[in-house]
Amino acid sequence: MNNLKRLPLAFFKRSITTEFTKNKFKVQRGNYNYLDESHINFFRDLLGETRIIMDLSDLEKYNVDWFKQCRGSSGLVLKPKNTEEVSQILNFCNNNRLAVCPQGGNTGVVGGCTPVFDEIIISMELMDKVIDLDDTSGILVCQSGCILQNLNEYLESKNLIVPLDLGAKGSCQIGGNVSTNAGGIRLLRYGNLHGNILGLEVVTATGEIMNCMSTLKKDNTGYHLKHLFIGSEGTLGVVTKVAIQCPPKSKHVNVAFLGLENFDKVLETFKRAKQDLGEVLSAFEVLDSETMRFNKDKFQIESPIGNHPFYLLIETSGSNQQHDSEKLNGLLEKLLSEKCITNGTVATDEAKINSIWNIREITPQGYKMDEFVFCYDISVPLNHYYGIVDEIKSRMGNKAKRVFGYGHLGDANLHLQVAVNTYSQETRELLEPFLFERVRELNGSISAEHGMGFLKGKYLGLARPSSSLGLMKRLKRMFDPNGILNPYKVFPY
Amino acid sequence: MNNLKRLPLAFFKRSITTEFTKNKFKVQRGNYNYLDESHINFFRDLLGETRIIMDLSDLEKYNVDWFKQCRGSSGLVLKPKNTEEVSQILNFCNNNRLAVCPQGGNTGVVGGCTPVFDEIIISMELMDKVIDLDDTSGILVCQSGCILQNLNEYLESKNLIVPLDLGAKGSCQIGGNVSTNAGGIRLLRYGNLHGNILGLEVVTATGEIMNCMSTLKKDNTGYHLKHLFIGSEGTLGVVTKVAIQCPPKSKHVNVAFLGLENFDKVLETFKRAKQDLGEVLSAFEVLDSETMRFNKDKFQIESPIGNHPFYLLIETSGSNQQHDSEKLNGLLEKLLSEKCITNGTVATDEAKINSIWNIREITPQGYKMDEFVFCYDISVPLNHYYGIVDEIKSRMGNKAKRVFGYGHLGDANLHLQVAVNTYSQETRELLEPFLFERVRELNGSISAEHGMGFLKGKYLGLARPSSSLGLMKRLKRMFDPNGILNPYKVFPY
Repeated sequence: MNNLKRLPLAFFKRSITTEFTKNKFKVQRGNYNYLDESHINFFRDLLGETRIIMDLSDLEKYNVDWFKQCRGSSGLVLKPKNTEEVSQILNFCNNNRLAVCPQGGNTGVVGGCTPVFDEIIISMELMDKVIDLDDTSGILVCQSGCILQNLNEYLESKNLIVPLDLGAKGSCQIGGNVSTNAGGIRLLRYGNLHGNILGLEVVTATGEIMNCMSTLKKDNTGYHLKHLFIGSEGTLGVVTKVAIQCPPKSKHVNVAFLGLENFDKVLETFKRAKQDLGEVLSAFEVLDSETMRFNKDKFQIESPIGNHPFYLLIETSGSNQQHDSEKLNGLLEKLLSEKCITNGTVATDEAKINSIWNIREITPQGYKMDEFVFCYDISVPLNHYYGIVDEIKSRMGNKAKRVFGYGHLGDANLHLQVAVNTYSQETRELLEPFLFERVRELNGSISAEHGMGFLKGKYLGLARPSSSLGLMKRLKRMFDPNGILNPYKVFPY
Repeated sequence: MNNLKRLPLAFFKRSITTEFTKNKFKVQRGNYNYLDESHINFFRDLLGETRIIMDLSDLEKYNVDWFKQCRGSSGLVLKPKNTEEVSQILNFCNNNRLAVCPQGGNTGVVGGCTPVFDEIIISMELMDKVIDLDDTSGILVCQSGCILQNLNEYLESKNLIVPLDLGAKGSCQIGGNVSTNAGGIRLLRYGNLHGNILGLEVVTATGEIMNCMSTLKKDNTGYHLKHLFIGSEGTLGVVTKVAIQCPPKSKHVNVAFLGLENFDKVLETFKRAKQDLGEVLSAFEVLDSETMRFNKDKFQIESPIGNHPFYLLIETSGSNQQHDSEKLNGLLEKLLSEKCITNGTVATDEAKINSIWNIREITPQGYKMDEFVFCYDISVPLNHYYGIVDEIKSRMGNKAKRVFGYGHLGDANLHLQVAVNTYSQETRELLEPFLFERVRELNGSISAEHGMGFLKGKYLGLARPSSSLGLMKRLKRMFDPNGILNPYKVFPY
């Protein structure tokens, strides 16, 4: 997988105009100051004319989110080049009670990195330098604005990879990945960012530079502060530097694409794959038949193995092609002979591997072509994993054009989608909070890998017990007494 | 490795009387109340007569630490059976300003889990129940007092393992492992506890039960609070329940024991092992010749491959014996022919694997047999890893009986030991803070996997920059306003 160039996730067509978030969701502006000429002069003196954006048409791409669900009305984007500048910006904003919205690649899908009102956008795009790589230990230190795909290409030249791979990798930035605790495809193999991030440098709301840098796998000297910033979506601080443990690039990759009759067989195949593929299993992804129909309608992409109720994409990556193939083929032969899988194909060459991964990864690009798609990113314990899709199908009836599900089954992470002709608040209310309450009943998570952002923040009380919600609020007040950092996000607005 | 019964690390001989910590280190008692009859009556009513310990001889094993470096004078041990009791104990202690010392298996080596003065000891030993195991996903939920080895034996019967393995596993408890962010041998393969712990239940100083439980690999709903308790050594809360991701038990294990001429060849072998063994590499441990001489003197254990300046223990664990052996033997043949390694032996049967692991793991049992050993647990970037041992050798000259080093080289974690005839403050002062300052210069960590506890707390300012030290203090005040939780630990006393 590591050396593949998959299709980049392009920004969606700009033909659909996104309504202002503040109107669509009836949000009340917080008690912040309005930007005036003296503020702008300060930023102009600090950054120079070329690193502040105030032109309306240039601001558009920073004000509208990736899935075109949210739209802010920020009049100012700042582009710092180093930590000291980030510190000075935040110190000034805190002293002047100006709200800010830190922004990486702007590829979030829950409105976490776009402004809601006129927050000043701090874009990290110019902080994109690799600082150091130790290629014996595989430890990379870089600025937070590095684009994930660029980092991965740099590492591949040293036979290493980033332990993280997302559809948005061509645009998303490592600092944004850290701030949202991004998941993705490699999590099954390499674990989450809490395990892989070794150190962070973060600037808090008052402009204090918080040095939580370490480049050591084992370092137990005091509280493990960096974890507070991983996944707090820019509400506790702005990540400026990242140290990350990078595993060796696997020498060989195999991908199997399988058709199955029902979901019980999907689960059985997962158990068997864990047992038989063991340490070389690197992805275990599921698609339902409706996802495949969606892909066919939008992109004329068809299943290479005929039509089936479910499809699995199993990837191995390892150090010895012959060993990996033996393990994978041995498993598939057994599964076929036991009728656990109905049909399948295996790819070992790059072109075919790409085309199979494309089936799994192209779907989100179709979301805004001629309909509106409600996108949910949930975790559901495996015994209820697909049941929740069926429940939503039956709840929506003919009110939805289609309900479909796909996702990282190996991590119990499901992307559940509901397509309708046009967005309506009524449809949203039919889906939410019903879906989120149901997920909670099943001990799942209403946000597996995308965070709370703006869109899910109001359901925080559903996701978290009151004790931890109370602690979150105390931490927010402690780190950001004026509440200037990414307001209206994570917490209910 | 997973199915091996290694020698348990027994408590050291009790013949040496440990001086009281408060006298040895001249500590000032904090402003806490003294235990009186009314307090004892409260605890007696809550727990009953059998779950409080006040008898002096029974108190001994709770008051003295594993390495016999620290001794408290607690007059009361409480043994709660459930979270509600822990909550009531802490609430009462907080209201009455009584200091407490939470204690798991009391196997810490930096005096983190033994009292310094008369702190009430909360022993978690009766909270040892497994609550749930999902054997498809491998997610275990248990009380925090479960002994690591018991958990592992339970999991092995389901073809799973705990992603954690320590010399102290026969006594240490999972809650203590979490509270100290314990490292150990499996870290190289499965990563650290921040990556593997999915959820925690914790009681804070005021008795509030903090529910940070989740049994999901992907859950991004708000701040990731549990990480604050991982590695904070019982100073922010008492861990009562743990949810942990458990990997499948590897079907096959191989162990190679190698002799090498110099440390450059050790590093070269590490690079090659990462490349060639890839996903099946599960341990990469180093011992120097002095460690081997120590083992011979204390236990009459000899190297099975003759004498060499350095020894490596390389373990593979995987799903296919033939594949794993091919990879390992292929690597060793190349290394031998290139004279990178001088000699070696490979074990595939359990008895021989055990005896090889025993060489690496028996050393700490000899520390108190007839000399005093200063034990340091440090991380050092690999290019300086063994240089630091040579520096300490040359600094100590004939003031030390021997200086030796061994450790988890794959994680850059070195156990550096200095043996002397008897403990003296003068020798300690020759070693510290020189060693810790040198480690800091090399961008290492003064505590890789054992924490700060009491013994290293005073060097916190060396280990952490002022910004993060300041934040630690603010967090401590927020969680524990009266400072009753494990005082004199982590922070300088």
